Parts: sequence; C-alpha cells; structure tokens
Amino acid sequence: MTKTSSGNFFEDFRLGQTIRHATPRTVTTGDVALYNALFGARFAMQSSADFAMAAGYRDAPIDDLLVFHIVFGKTVPDISLNAVANLGYAGMQFLAPVHAGDTLTALSEVIGLKENSSRKTGVVYVRTRGFKNGDTAVLEYARWVMVRKRDEDAPAPGDHVPRLPTAVEPRLLGAACPPIDAAAYDFSLSGSPHRFGDYRPGEKIDHVTGMTVEEAEHQLATRLYQNTARIHFDNHSARQSRFGKRLIYGGHAISLARALSFDGLANAFHIAAINGGRHVAPLFAGDTVFAWSEILATSELPGRGDVGALRIRTIATKDRLCGDFPYRSGDDYDPAVILDLDYWALIPV
Amino acid sequence: MTKTSSGNFFEDFRLGQTIRHATPRTVTTGDVALYNALFGARFAMQSSADFAMAAGYRDAPIDDLLVFHIVFGKTVPDISLNAVANLGYAGMQFLAPVHAGDTLTALSEVIGLKENSSRKTGVVYVRTRGFKNGDTAVLEYARWVMVRKRDEDAPAPGDHVPRLPTAVEPRLLGAACPPIDAAAYDFSLSGSPHRFGDYRPGEKIDHVTGMTVEEAEHQLATRLYQNTARIHFDNHSARQSRFGKRLIYGGHAISLARALSFDGLANAFHIAAINGGRHVAPLFAGDTVFAWSEILATSELPGRGDVGALRIRTIATKDRLCGDFPYRSGDDYDPAVILDLDYWALIPV
Amino acid sequence: MTKTSSGNFFEDFRLGQTIRHATPRTVTTGDVALYNALFGARFAMQSSADFAMAAGYRDAPIDDLLVFHIVFGKTVPDISLNAVANLGYAGMQFLAPVHAGDTLTALSEVIGLKENSSRKTGVVYVRTRGFKNGDTAVLEYARWVMVRKRDEDAPAPGDHVPRLPTAVEPRLLGAACPPIDAAAYDFSLSGSPHRFGDYRPGEKIDHVTGMTVEEAEHQLATRLYQNTARIHFDNHSARQSRFGKRLIYGGHAISLARALSFDGLANAFHIAAINGGRHVAPLFAGDTVFAWSEILATSELPGRGDVGALRIRTIATKDRLCGDFPYRSGDDYDPAVILDLDYWALIPV
Repeated sequence: MTKTSSGNFFEDFRLGQTIRHATPRTVTTGDVALYNALFGARFAMQSSADFAMAAGYRDAPIDDLLVFHIVFGKTVPDISLNAVANLGYAGMQFLAPVHAGDTLTALSEVIGLKENSSRKTGVVYVRTRGFKNGDTAVLEYARWVMVRKRDEDAPAPGDHVPRLPTAVEPRLLGAACPPIDAAAYDFSLSGSPHRFGDYRPGEKIDHVTGMTVEEAEHQLATRLYQNTARIHFDNHSARQSRFGKRLIYGGHAISLARALSFDGLANAFHIAAINGGRHVAPLFAGDTVFAWSEILATSELPGRGDVGALRIRTIATKDRLCGDFPYRSGDDYDPAVILDLDYWALIPV
Repeated sequence: MTKTSSGNFFEDFRLGQTIRHATPRTVTTGDVALYNALFGARFAMQSSADFAMAAGYRDAPIDDLLVFHIVFGKTVPDISLNAVANLGYAGMQFLAPVHAGDTLTALSEVIGLKENSSRKTGVVYVRTRGFKNGDTAVLEYARWVMVRKRDEDAPAPGDHVPRLPTAVEPRLLGAACPPIDAAAYDFSLSGSPHRFGDYRPGEKIDHVTGMTVEEAEHQLATRLYQNTARIHFDNHSARQSRFGKRLIYGGHAISLARALSFDGLANAFHIAAINGGRHVAPLFAGDTVFAWSEILATSELPGRGDVGALRIRTIATKDRLCGDFPYRSGDDYDPAVILDLDYWALIPV
Repeated sequence: MTKTSSGNFFEDFRLGQTIRHATPRTVTTGDVALYNALFGARFAMQSSADFAMAAGYRDAPIDDLLVFHIVFGKTVPDISLNAVANLGYAGMQFLAPVHAGDTLTALSEVIGLKENSSRKTGVVYVRTRGFKNGDTAVLEYARWVMVRKRDEDAPAPGDHVPRLPTAVEPRLLGAACPPIDAAAYDFSLSGSPHRFGDYRPGEKIDHVTGMTVEEAEHQLATRLYQNTARIHFDNHSARQSRFGKRLIYGGHAISLARALSFDGLANAFHIAAINGGRHVAPLFAGDTVFAWSEILATSELPGRGDVGALRIRTIATKDRLCGDFPYRSGDDYDPAVILDLDYWALIPV
C-alpha cells in the first residue's frame, strides 16, 4: 500500500464532502518581499505599514492575491491533482485582512458533481474557505474543475450542478477592509489623485507597461504558494504535456495584471471580491504580459462613507500592447488575450 | 601584500588547527520565504508557527537543511576554496532547533590530513560545528574534501585519517527536537496519516514529482547561504572548468530531494542526523530532479515516547522518473542517479 | 482625460519644483534576504544583528545600497520615465541608519534645467532626499538625467546648471554610523584583519570572483525596488529599443561590485557617501561581472576615533578578470569596463 498520494479522481468525490487541506502556512514579511519582487506591486496600503496604520489597518495588509494563491495552493493536492482543466471561479469574497504572522489554513466542501458524457471525466464544484489562526474566515470562493476518472466504468458519484452567483453583491463587500480614515489617506503618497467619484462606468484604462515572465520567476511563485501542480515546475513531465513545456500558473497572470493596473487604479487598494475569472489562453516563460481595464460599474457600500466599490474588468494580453483595448474579436477573444477577470475593488470616496 | 584571500591550500592546514569562520548570519523569516520559494517544502512543522507551537516548539523551526547550508557556506572560504572535490560527510547531528532571529556562526577543527600520492593534492578532514547566538551548538558534522597544494614540493602537513562513524547511533538523535505533544500534532493538517509504526525496513517510496532547476534559482540559493564557491555563479570561469558551465551546489539537490520526499514522508518532520551523503553525479540548470526513498531501519529513541526515528536512504535522479527505484546498476550507480543520501528523520509514534 | 501617468517631460519641470514621490515602502528582513540572495553580500555588520548590536547599532543596518535603490526607485515615475540617459550622480550622503521596520519615502527638488541644442531633450538636475518614518533624512544625492520633450516647440522651462561637488568632504561623513565599539568589533568574524591603517592611497585590490546575472535575477531586483523603468523587465518593448533586449538597472552593477569587494575590503562596512558614479557601458543578462578597487585617499573623521574613511574607486567589468586592473585605454575606458564608482567607505581604525 503506497504512502504516496495520487490525489482524488472524479469518482472519489462525494456531494457534501468536506476536505481539510494540508499544509498550514504562516505568512511573513519574507513572503511579502518575494511577492513584491515577483510582481512589483506599488499600492501604498500593502507597501507601507505606516500608510496602512494611518489609514485604519493594524499593520500593512497582505496582498489579497497572495492570500488567495496560498489558500488555492493548499487545495491542489486534494482537488485538482488530476485535473484536466480549471474551468472557473465564482463568488470570491475577501472576509478579513491578513497580516504578517497570521497562519493560513483551508477547507473545501464539494458542492456539485457532474460527469461528462464521455464518462472519462467529470466536473467537481467546490466551495473553498481560507482561515487565519484557526477559525477566522479570510476568503471564500467557489471553483469548478474538470477531473479525470481513475476508472471509466466507476459510477458517477453524484449529479448536481450548483447555482453560482455571476457577481458578488455590493452589500457583501468590505468585510476585509477596516474603516478607512479618508483624512489620513495621503493621495500624494499613494501615487494618484483619483478617487471613487472620478471613475465612470464604461471608462477604459490602458495600464501601459508590460512585464516579461521568466521560468525561474513563476517557479519561485508556485512553490512559494506550496502549489503542487507539477506542470508548473517539472519540465521533464511538461515536455510530454499538450503544451510541450511548462505552463505558468494562471494566478501568476492575475497578479501581474493587478500589479500593472496600479497605473490608472492606484487608489483601488483592496480587492474585495472576484466575480469571475477566465484563463483564456496559456501563458509561458518569455511572454510579456500587458493589461487594460474597464470600469463595469460603481457602487457605494451600504453604511459606509469611507470607501466605494469599482467593478472592474481587467484584460491581460501577451506580447501585445493594450492602447486599443483588445478584447473580443467576433464571437471569440482577441488571440492575444490570456485573462478576463471581473472583480470589485475598494477605493476611497 | 595582497588583501584578497586566496583560501587555504593543502599545506596550509595543520592537524588540530581550529578555524573560526566569517561571516555571522542572522536567520530571518525572509530566508525562510526564499527557501520555501526555491524548494516548495510542505512539512507543517516548518511551515506553520501555530502548528509548531502546538506541537512543542517555541516557534516554527528553521528547516534543518537551511541551517546546514548556511553553516556549510561559512566554511567554504577557509576550507574548500581550493577544493578539487567534495568527498563526503559523516556523523552530521542536529543539536538544537534554530528559529528566526537566531544568529549562526561556525567553527571547524582539522581532524585529519592525508596527502595524495601525486603530491598535487591532499585530503583535509574537518569537524565543523554551527552555533547559534554565540555558544549553543546547533549542528556538527565531519567532512572531507580533496584540496590542491599551492606548491607540490611543500612537505605534507600531517598524515592522519580519522575514524568516522558510518551512521549516527539512535541514542544520539533528537537533541534538536523538543518533546512533541502527539495529541496536538494534527495528522490531517500535516498531510498524511502515516506515523512511525506505519513504516517498515525495506519499504520503498516513490516521491513521484520532479522539479526543474533554473540558473537563477540555484544562484539565488548559493548566495543566500553566502557560499563563495564561484563554480556555482561565475559562468565566465565555469566555462573553462571541466564541466564547461556552472555546477549546481550539491546541497541544492539534497534540499530538492527532501522537499519532494514530503509525498510519502509527510510526518518525518525533522532531520535529526545525516549518516552520509554522496553526490554521485553533477547537477546542471535545466535538469529535473526526481527522488525515491527506502526505509533502511526504524528505531525508537531511548527515553522518548513521542517520536521515533526512520533511517532513510533517499536517492535523487535527474531527468528520470523513480517509479522503478533506480539505484545500482551492477557495481556502479544507475547513470541517472545524482545523490545517495543516508539520514535519520524523526516522526511521531 | 487619462488616469494613466505618462511621466514628466522636460518642459513639465520647473526650477525649484518639489516632487513628493509615491509609494511609501516599509523595509523588512524579507527585503534583506532577497538582497542577500541576489548579491551574496558578506559584510558582518549587515549580515548579523548580534555583530551589529555589539558594535553599536540598535539592529543590523539595512545595506546602504538597498536603501539607495528603494529611494531611487520611487523617483523613476516622476523624474526619469521619459529619460534618454542617466548622466550622473553627485554628493550622495547617507545620513541615518535604516533598520527593518522603517518606512522609506522620497522627495526631489529640481535644482537645474538645461535644454539641449537639438531642442528635443533637456537635462534635469534634481536633489533627492530619502526619509524614514516621515521626517528623518537617511540619504541625499544630486542626480542629472537627460529627458525627452513632449513637444519640441515648447519653451525651455529654465536654464540653470547647478554647481555640484566632485567629492563629499570627509567632515560630512559618518552621520549614518553610530559610534563603533572597536573592542567589540570581531576581526575574526568579520573575515579580515585589515583596518583603516592598513590601507594606503594608490593601493589596488583585485576582488577576484565574478558573478553572472540572469534575467530573472535583475527583474526581481528592479521590482523589489518598485523601479518602474520598463526597459529592465518589459522584453516586448525592450526588443524595439536600441539595445534590442532588456537592459539591467545600473544599480545592479553597483551592488554586485560592492558585494564582490568584500574580498579585500571586508571591514569597510558602511558606504558613507558616493562622490560620483558612471555607468560606462550597459550590462545584460548572461554577462559576468568582475571588479577591482583602488584606494584614492584615506581620511580620519573629525572628532571620531572609532572609524576612518577610505575613498575608493571601484571599477566593474563584464566578462573580464581584473587581475591587471583594467581601467583606461588611451582617452577612453577599457572596453570591458561597465562601472566607474567613486565612494567613501568607513572602516574601524
């Protein structure tokens, strides 16, 4: 009997099943430094403890996406080691700020199962929650992923497709953001004068700069998150994959696009929710990522006069400037697009 | 008179000589983050301060191999700057846990000297001790290395081959591991249910996943340890070496193999001793490292009911899967093998 | 009206103008670990909190050049986003030690403006100050840079070339260095017995070892400093530049040369001032950097008996050993030279 885990196959999941993931992980300023070195983020709130404490946090908050990557990484050995494809996210809410010294854990519940007609694979829907220091939820999201069956003849373990929100409602935003002292928020130090009222639905912003990814960089990132998907760092196996080479973890593109978006969205300091995300095309080492954003909606937050929410679509491309806002091309995406992300960010009013 | 150090040559050493090495080094959570990003370690004890403190440590312990690499790095300018080959290790014991904030120093004693018949080189045997915060020993090991002579005609500085242990006795294990509260050790969070009693001598475990090494990665590692062996990061000189390119520090393969071994040995949380290690073949950037382990022996620890010891042989290969446990091929090693490591790891009973 | 910053062009600057730069940045031990991994620095004072505190610091000081790179990085979006060339530095003084936990900000004053005869560009002179925790100056320097005009027909915004010092006077050195307890400074742990009195003007020191730079490494460095000059990390754009590839940030060569200079200058623990620096030739990934130094002058510090100052010229080359001290070749630099740096370092007397 082997002690090596081969991960779960489609027929191993059960509706309502709860999976407590290994490995607990204390987040440190060391992780923050590496995250900064990988993406060059410049949002003042995460960059400066002084700035964050003046604004209302008890310390600089850990970048929301770093929290997500670490929580996501924990789920890989149990949920997606035998995945064929990551299909989507929905209803991702950030629920409490995370600071250096907090220990993150993760728990997933199987909320849907749907065998594919080929009977070779099935779609697994999970709701994952990340916690700090035992029981304080910091993050919650639904995710669905196509998973191989070990045995094609095994009966389907269930047949239920959950109803998932297409967007997080504004009333659910802001739990991870303490009351912000607008008077103490320094718009000169933050790098831009633009606040909530300056953005309009339909507005498009080119984030201008590109960032090239090296193999060493995305490997460092993936391992930092303890993400065990070998396609990202095992080139011997990757050479035999359909890509013929290592595939960059999809979250890397999200973090690059977010970091680039500082140029135009400098005060949108907190990702409060991710409504949905689609990895339209794969990203490989040597590619240069560019990004642009459209303001889809703006919303005040019930009961809060300090911050408002911008619903933003950020599109990332590879090896293509975004001055003309490439997105759709007929029914399909522009061939340069790699990421279509829909999220809510908070910004001082 | 030059102020540049050219290191010690064989004839510069004296039996019984004691060398206090530069540079003292405070270990931080920054070092831990980089180590994690380089190797993707997932052992819960080192990953989570909460987990470690519940189990009995005063904080998450620094990875044993990171402590070793830093102590080893300090010895390079004095011991092996003029080395032709690293020949072996013996009797490596971890003596006290190291935590972020501790400052490491190192001291070596020359315990053996043996000129080679060519008179061009000689073997230097040293016993190196690593200390934290001045005088608490954290690590001790013997090492022997073939060192060039500056002047072939110089008389041999001594002729003594020390007796070195082939393995560390179980009664010497565990000094760096506080009493572990087994009830608080969470086998769900640690990633595996397998404990001491579940392993049997002769059992073989394939660690499945591979990890590809990039030049930037092993250069970052070597410099992080302040290891000054230029063959690892000076490509101008390396091109003229017998390899024609940069050679990856042998310890990098040890750390990769250890990190990969999580899959099958998740609860073997502490390397208590290294009985011996052999770098069978060189590792270069672009290679993918795989590993498998055999349980050589199991031993209870005298006077301790919390943890037992597994004696493990871990074999690492490059660009070759380990499902069939490649090791020897006739009198020689399988050509894919790069590392043959024999160590004791502690695991809850 | 775009929310994306296109940076300042020559005609946007005004004499006497003050620019408060984004983004405030809390320096951590995570940054220190990355800096060590990138350059392999071995100076005991920065490496060991114990060593530094015994000598007289309240904690290990952050490497002077890391402080400079972070402060410099902040100025890029406002000063040099439209730069054609970085022309020089002068009068750089380190004014207070920086420790992990300090938050850095930066402020620049325009002290000179000179349009070029082509009317396409102009030279902007700024005096930049870095601060910790709001208002304690840690660093000050003058810098001049050639900046493009947005509109060739725009009138020149001024015409004033400031008088800049060719060297920082010894009486201005040492503000960032607390009184050093020479009795507690351990010359065995620091790696060299050589102190102030052992160095003579005219003395040349080959730093022997080389260090090869990878794309991932200098990209990590540039982003760690939040330096937004895209030529360093946007290969899509860099391919269309005059270099046809990514250019390594000039400060990277300075940090490499300084780290290499440990071998020969191990006790010159603090850069008190940089008199001037010239990036003689560009550095690209794959190049190996070597360095040598000449002692230009030695000076006691008024009122201080603990440390003296060495004025040092450090020359860095690429892909060329420095045993014969390559520098000038006729009127020009030796073709291998990439950096000509003139600075003051403090060393125990």
